Amino acid sequence: MLSTMQDAPLSIAQLLRHGSTVHGGAEVVTWTDAGPQRRSYAEVGRRCAALAHALRGLGVTGDERVATFMWNNAEHLEAYLAVPSMGAVLHTLNIRLFPEQLVHVANHAEDHVIIVDPTLIPLLAPQLPQLTTVKHVIVTGDSTAGLEVPEGVQVHTYEALIADQPTEFDWPEVDERSAAAMCYTSGTTGDPKGVVYSHRSIYLHSMQVCMTEGPGLKQGDRALAVVPQFHAMSWGLPYAAFMIGASLIMPDRFLQPAPLAELIAAERPTFAAAVPTIWLGLHQYLEQKPQDISYMKEVLIGGSAVPPSLMHVFENEHGVSVLHAWGMTETSPLGSVARPPAGSEGDDRWRYRYTQGRFPASVQARLVDDAGEVVPNDGSSIGELEVRGPWITGSYYGVDAPDKFDNGWLRTGDVGSITPDGYLTLTDRTKDIIKSGGEWISSVDLENAVMGHPDVLEAAVIGVPDEKWDERPLVAVVLREGSAATVDSLRDFLSDKVAKWQLPENWTVVSEVPKTSVGKFDKKRLRSQYHDGGLDVTRI
Amino acid sequence: MLSTMQDAPLSIAQLLRHGSTVHGGAEVVTWTDAGPQRRSYAEVGRRCAALAHALRGLGVTGDERVATFMWNNAEHLEAYLAVPSMGAVLHTLNIRLFPEQLVHVANHAEDHVIIVDPTLIPLLAPQLPQLTTVKHVIVTGDSTAGLEVPEGVQVHTYEALIADQPTEFDWPEVDERSAAAMCYTSGTTGDPKGVVYSHRSIYLHSMQVCMTEGPGLKQGDRALAVVPQFHAMSWGLPYAAFMIGASLIMPDRFLQPAPLAELIAAERPTFAAAVPTIWLGLHQYLEQKPQDISYMKEVLIGGSAVPPSLMHVFENEHGVSVLHAWGMTETSPLGSVARPPAGSEGDDRWRYRYTQGRFPASVQARLVDDAGEVVPNDGSSIGELEVRGPWITGSYYGVDAPDKFDNGWLRTGDVGSITPDGYLTLTDRTKDIIKSGGEWISSVDLENAVMGHPDVLEAAVIGVPDEKWDERPLVAVVLREGSAATVDSLRDFLSDKVAKWQLPENWTVVSEVPKTSVGKFDKKRLRSQYHDGGLDVTRI
Repeated sequence: MLSTMQDAPLSIAQLLRHGSTVHGGAEVVTWTDAGPQRRSYAEVGRRCAALAHALRGLGVTGDERVATFMWNNAEHLEAYLAVPSMGAVLHTLNIRLFPEQLVHVANHAEDHVIIVDPTLIPLLAPQLPQLTTVKHVIVTGDSTAGLEVPEGVQVHTYEALIADQPTEFDWPEVDERSAAAMCYTSGTTGDPKGVVYSHRSIYLHSMQVCMTEGPGLKQGDRALAVVPQFHAMSWGLPYAAFMIGASLIMPDRFLQPAPLAELIAAERPTFAAAVPTIWLGLHQYLEQKPQDISYMKEVLIGGSAVPPSLMHVFENEHGVSVLHAWGMTETSPLGSVARPPAGSEGDDRWRYRYTQGRFPASVQARLVDDAGEVVPNDGSSIGELEVRGPWITGSYYGVDAPDKFDNGWLRTGDVGSITPDGYLTLTDRTKDIIKSGGEWISSVDLENAVMGHPDVLEAAVIGVPDEKWDERPLVAVVLREGSAATVDSLRDFLSDKVAKWQLPENWTVVSEVPKTSVGKFDKKRLRSQYHDGGLDVTRI
Repeated sequence: MLSTMQDAPLSIAQLLRHGSTVHGGAEVVTWTDAGPQRRSYAEVGRRCAALAHALRGLGVTGDERVATFMWNNAEHLEAYLAVPSMGAVLHTLNIRLFPEQLVHVANHAEDHVIIVDPTLIPLLAPQLPQLTTVKHVIVTGDSTAGLEVPEGVQVHTYEALIADQPTEFDWPEVDERSAAAMCYTSGTTGDPKGVVYSHRSIYLHSMQVCMTEGPGLKQGDRALAVVPQFHAMSWGLPYAAFMIGASLIMPDRFLQPAPLAELIAAERPTFAAAVPTIWLGLHQYLEQKPQDISYMKEVLIGGSAVPPSLMHVFENEHGVSVLHAWGMTETSPLGSVARPPAGSEGDDRWRYRYTQGRFPASVQARLVDDAGEVVPNDGSSIGELEVRGPWITGSYYGVDAPDKFDNGWLRTGDVGSITPDGYLTLTDRTKDIIKSGGEWISSVDLENAVMGHPDVLEAAVIGVPDEKWDERPLVAVVLREGSAATVDSLRDFLSDKVAKWQLPENWTVVSEVPKTSVGKFDKKRLRSQYHDGGLDVTRI
């Protein structure tokens, strides 16, 4: 039996149309050297139409890829909206990829156009001669100064290109399952792999971002998007903001604690999103230069596990509630969100908030053990997390990766448990878990325990070979300047916090933990440093 | 370019699975003679599986129709979830249809099974001999007492039927665009027409119900669904509640103010939904028997325009915020919701709340004039409202109705204006608007103005023929008992509230305004009463 419902596709053009009219008074604020630059969503709508006309003029047709090599700013938002709406595919290039990775992904995606911020020209220009499919480079702003391009590539400024274009565009009706945008994983193992989002997946994900159980973005919010637009679509905030009528505050390249604090004071965000490192940095800065940030009612943190100590410090010292979430490029990225159940209180409430949270109805989750069997959601059985849903990837663009999928489910590579009422607690990555004498030790649990010490700024734990136990944990700590803590005192501090057999005997004090391009602990590099003898390890 | 996203359908089975596990501790409460009967969502999940097995046992396969002739209760919720999840189609029969309409819709939909509440047997049984496709009648509870059925029809009790069935069911994966449920319009003109909802439309609509700009249903809410499950899917509350983990409070047949007040006191809903008449009745009851209902933070009102006086009285006297919304059976039904823009205050805020509200990104709205031209959203231009979106019907089941559609848009039959920021104000139905001397007079505006008088309980306005002006308004008022108000004093009361040329000269005091099966003013009947000379009209 057929339904009588209209066949109306879910599309980015619909978000663009809605946000630029009904919410035309909302604004995107971009931080610059000279302070904030403001643009209403009505104006963004007109500029999107002009950009689409300009791109058509450059020969962008069908599903050709238009890449961005940009910070978070108004022009990046325009590309987010205009490129998919005209039927082309947005490819957000990660500015922190290694040069050879950048060349690989741009060629693999067959980018036709790249839009680049002037301040990022030095990072992009050296690679341009190897980008074989790029025909046009568009520099945001008014000047292409400093950019030399290979023969056959044309250079434009963004403002000149859109200046005389019509400010309305007849957005085509698309198949909602067609490609809208793509993003490559940061690729800690092997080449980065491409995830291709559809109009449908982005639309549904945007609805979820505005649902009460999700981040709960709402009309009138001022959302500070610190999480980069080149990283997992800035967690979907730009699209969700246009859907619901929340203003966006974009830090551009000003991601250091000092300018971020200044931006926050000036623009008073009510909501913000960033990885833990950013919030740690901000907190440390605010300890030196106190400032009220309590109007920022809730901050969404994901990308790596949030240390409970960070959640408490934001709540108690800054009056800001931390909302812990889990996701990955492959999941659009919103997976689970740690809103505690209504009615939970005190420590109980905190215990829920420490978890990676619950999945919404649209994302099914299960845990699978080493033998490929589904284990129960009983809060203690451990398995690899597998997920399924309309905004979860089912393959990678143009490459086979059968080991990443399990009969239609995405294997996340994360290990943990799920309670009967659906709360996920991740204990580790499959590749980071420490296998000691037949038992598993969670590197993340140890890290959180060590980071609970007041003198510890950062702690990363890896497994290192051990003759007797196969593997044992090694802790790399960064200490607060002038701290008198020693590895012995840190080990004592742990003694009543973790099981005795898990207590690490290998310690090293480092000036910083190596990080990946998106700010996560780079344990692969830490392991190489260990194996190359580059770490000064104390064995207790 | 293909996206790499998983092809995961949006389905009712997914809602059922999610709600009965992750939110297994939520509950549906059904009001009975003996007080509340409680059932957890985990239990509902098991009973849904048993019901699906039982229905398979009765030969329900493919997309066969399983009808309900029921109040709002736990068993109705189970039918809502189990029938579509097993791939069959739920058909909610409106218990207030006239007998010949009931026969028409059950035969037209080809209902195979009807589930009926014992208290509704007297309404259904007389029509059973004419229901040509019905093979099974299932009576909720334990007894079929009082039900005699034609030959060839089998009778079962619900509890016996599901008693020994397995409590798990391997829900089939459905095409999300296939039929899940159907509901016939109440049919004030001609035969009722069927709207067939898809898994996709119901799923997307449920997400919207839980979005911050929508009703904002949230985990832990206790939602009192007064709006019948046989009417526009109870505004989507049963599905949304399962999606988000809100408990449901079902009044069954206890819809009069006294038991409703008792139920509210006992179950402390945090959210509720009903047509204005219900809330008017409750308010009048509470004036006699005061009771705190302020834990019911927000009540959703739609189905017909909400008089501003009702909104103020609930806010000021009961501490309950009224959320005005617009929709219809054809729109699933959630269309617009009157949440004021963030930051609006005082009278400004109220002015937004009086409107029918804003449409979400998923529902496009436009106004079309008599000439078929789209008029601007400028807050003053008037046109017929047309809507488009994934949960808006594009046709009616098995009948042609070309005059109801305009090139892919649904013609709603409602007339009004839309502001540049998207707020809809309906002034009338196309068929109710009063055309006086070439100008339009809104019957609804007049009704609201008259109902602002403290002695007026209800007021309905229709156009009646006039030699000089073609049509002029006639006001039918219901006065508070013992009121000294006269039609002259009422006209005086209006004199500074509406334009002079709109002041009605025709008045009639009635004991009640005739209502449709769903509690709206039945202006068609009022017009016949007028034309048949059944109204005692005073001309001032």
